[in-house]
Amino acid sequence: MTLTRRDFSRLAALGAAAHFVPTPVRAQSDQKKTGYAIIGLGRIASHFMAGAHNTTNSQITALVSGHRDKAEKIAAENNIPKSSIYSYENFDEIAHNPAVDAVYVALPNSMHAEYTIRAAKAGKHVLCEKPMATSVEDSEKMIAACKAANKKLMIAYRCHYEPTNLRAVNLIRDGAIGQVQTIQSAFGFNIAKGEWRTSKAMAGGGPLYDVGIYSLNACRYLTGEEPDHIAAYASTIDHDGRFNDVEENVSWTMHFPSGIVASCSTTYGANMQGYFRVYGSKGWIEVDDAFSYDGLRLRANLSGKQIDEPSTAHDPSHFQAEADHFSHCVQNNLEPQSPGEEGLKDMQYIAQIYKAAGINS
Amino acid sequence: MTLTRRDFSRLAALGAAAHFVPTPVRAQSDQKKTGYAIIGLGRIASHFMAGAHNTTNSQITALVSGHRDKAEKIAAENNIPKSSIYSYENFDEIAHNPAVDAVYVALPNSMHAEYTIRAAKAGKHVLCEKPMATSVEDSEKMIAACKAANKKLMIAYRCHYEPTNLRAVNLIRDGAIGQVQTIQSAFGFNIAKGEWRTSKAMAGGGPLYDVGIYSLNACRYLTGEEPDHIAAYASTIDHDGRFNDVEENVSWTMHFPSGIVASCSTTYGANMQGYFRVYGSKGWIEVDDAFSYDGLRLRANLSGKQIDEPSTAHDPSHFQAEADHFSHCVQNNLEPQSPGEEGLKDMQYIAQIYKAAGINS
Repeated sequence: MTLTRRDFSRLAALGAAAHFVPTPVRAQSDQKKTGYAIIGLGRIASHFMAGAHNTTNSQITALVSGHRDKAEKIAAENNIPKSSIYSYENFDEIAHNPAVDAVYVALPNSMHAEYTIRAAKAGKHVLCEKPMATSVEDSEKMIAACKAANKKLMIAYRCHYEPTNLRAVNLIRDGAIGQVQTIQSAFGFNIAKGEWRTSKAMAGGGPLYDVGIYSLNACRYLTGEEPDHIAAYASTIDHDGRFNDVEENVSWTMHFPSGIVASCSTTYGANMQGYFRVYGSKGWIEVDDAFSYDGLRLRANLSGKQIDEPSTAHDPSHFQAEADHFSHCVQNNLEPQSPGEEGLKDMQYIAQIYKAAGINS
Repeated sequence: MTLTRRDFSRLAALGAAAHFVPTPVRAQSDQKKTGYAIIGLGRIASHFMAGAHNTTNSQITALVSGHRDKAEKIAAENNIPKSSIYSYENFDEIAHNPAVDAVYVALPNSMHAEYTIRAAKAGKHVLCEKPMATSVEDSEKMIAACKAANKKLMIAYRCHYEPTNLRAVNLIRDGAIGQVQTIQSAFGFNIAKGEWRTSKAMAGGGPLYDVGIYSLNACRYLTGEEPDHIAAYASTIDHDGRFNDVEENVSWTMHFPSGIVASCSTTYGANMQGYFRVYGSKGWIEVDDAFSYDGLRLRANLSGKQIDEPSTAHDPSHFQAEADHFSHCVQNNLEPQSPGEEGLKDMQYIAQIYKAAGINS
């Protein structure tokens, strides 16, 4: 199923969807290309670069890395001049590079705030990976810095631009499963020792910051509501040196204003394929591997009609859709579908979950 | 996979399994048949009678019903003399019927306590459907009455005798998924208006008493632990006359002493096929349709080994195994695997969940 602009306009017109308007997969009307500097050259950055490469309105024009050799290799592959390779030290000089309109921040969580704020001060728009930051305070500073510089800030919530997730949202908004009653969602993995994600200073916290945030955010976009009550427990079972800093497991329950209730879990101690199951008065929708780059599978019962849609690799990919959307917003002075305020909300809920679970955040 | 007596002895020897010892499917050594009076002739009673019929140690010898015609028809089908049909008024005369060793209580929840206590006073053992009662106090009275009469009391937790659930327990106890970290489970259905289950007086409460109890109990038998903290939310969304008395939805999170965390949901507002997913350090196990009479499906990843076992109808059925087990306990003066105390624990946890959710129970 391809979502058209008309679909999204119709969805946007629904009151329930007022604060979640899925974005078109491609905006083909843009006249120029938005130039991105990629900050942090890890795995997700390579996915984003590939996605941006396939758009008609985005291009990679600069790289920021602490590894000059790696950066030069990637620059050569992407026709980026060596003069547009920056280190973390000379990053602020990017202000003088007219080929760079925006930055994509793909650094460890603790560096999101600094580079978002430095980029805004350098006059660049910012697309920042999730989680937005490691604290509510930093998130607020990021929003303020972008606002002061009159620059766009978007949080890279991939699933807001991912076709199978959007299909689920679309079906729910269309009433295909009636009144939503309850949601279950989980996402986790068995983390290796020594990963930066197990450092509270670098990650902000445990699996909730990294993968649990997908379930948290999904419950919000699936319902179109904000939770008004949250209860939670956290624990660490494996004392094998991995969890000196952050918790291993978090499970939490949320209540939404309409009465929808949701149960979620996340872990760094078990491989827990991401999923959500949404149950309504007239049916249910589930997506397995819901938060992966590909291979998502939507199954549903819509008033008795069974649906089973194994997803293939998406073309265009949601990284492409994500880049396309932000470039489109930058070029047309539009507010992104997942702005800084969206990231801030998750940071506030994470803080609530941690408080409920007795964790100092 | 057939679980042998040796399997269960081995499981029983494991510390973790100390309070949950799966029962053998058939005890073929019993010399006589335990005679049951069936109290309440609804759908589940017919399943139990069919199951008992297929054992070598159980038989149906009396019926208790408010509908004489219905009772006479069922009596004729089961070779039960008309003299062994009782009404609710003359039920206590069953004390003088030597063909009745035990009763099976399959009445609405609010009647469980009364008929369990009357049966014990009449000198009969009691197999009582779940939930045990509509209050902790009644549950305690039931245990005390059976103890005073020196009669066995077992709560009919079908899943304790169901092969696919036992297979999951067995795999977990054997360490096939390593250290359990987190569990998700849910069970619910879209209830019809006017069902006795929507009467607080008759049911004790909403979906948690009826179907949510399966998820609650499953988390306990899957972990072999008792929850030490419970948080919960409840809600009613549909104001269509069904939920004047009881809540529509409950979601809750449990923390166990080892650190295992669990997220569960139940509803009367959506068809939510029962399931559990257990995630451990070395793999995961899930059973879909986990609490149904048949059609259960176990999927697992055990240290990388994929398992997918669609269940067929079980022979012997778990109703058969349940009857077999209780008869075996009665004849050999053994404590049932799911005694009154097991039912009482769930009643206590239900009370905790209701309190956490702000519901007066």
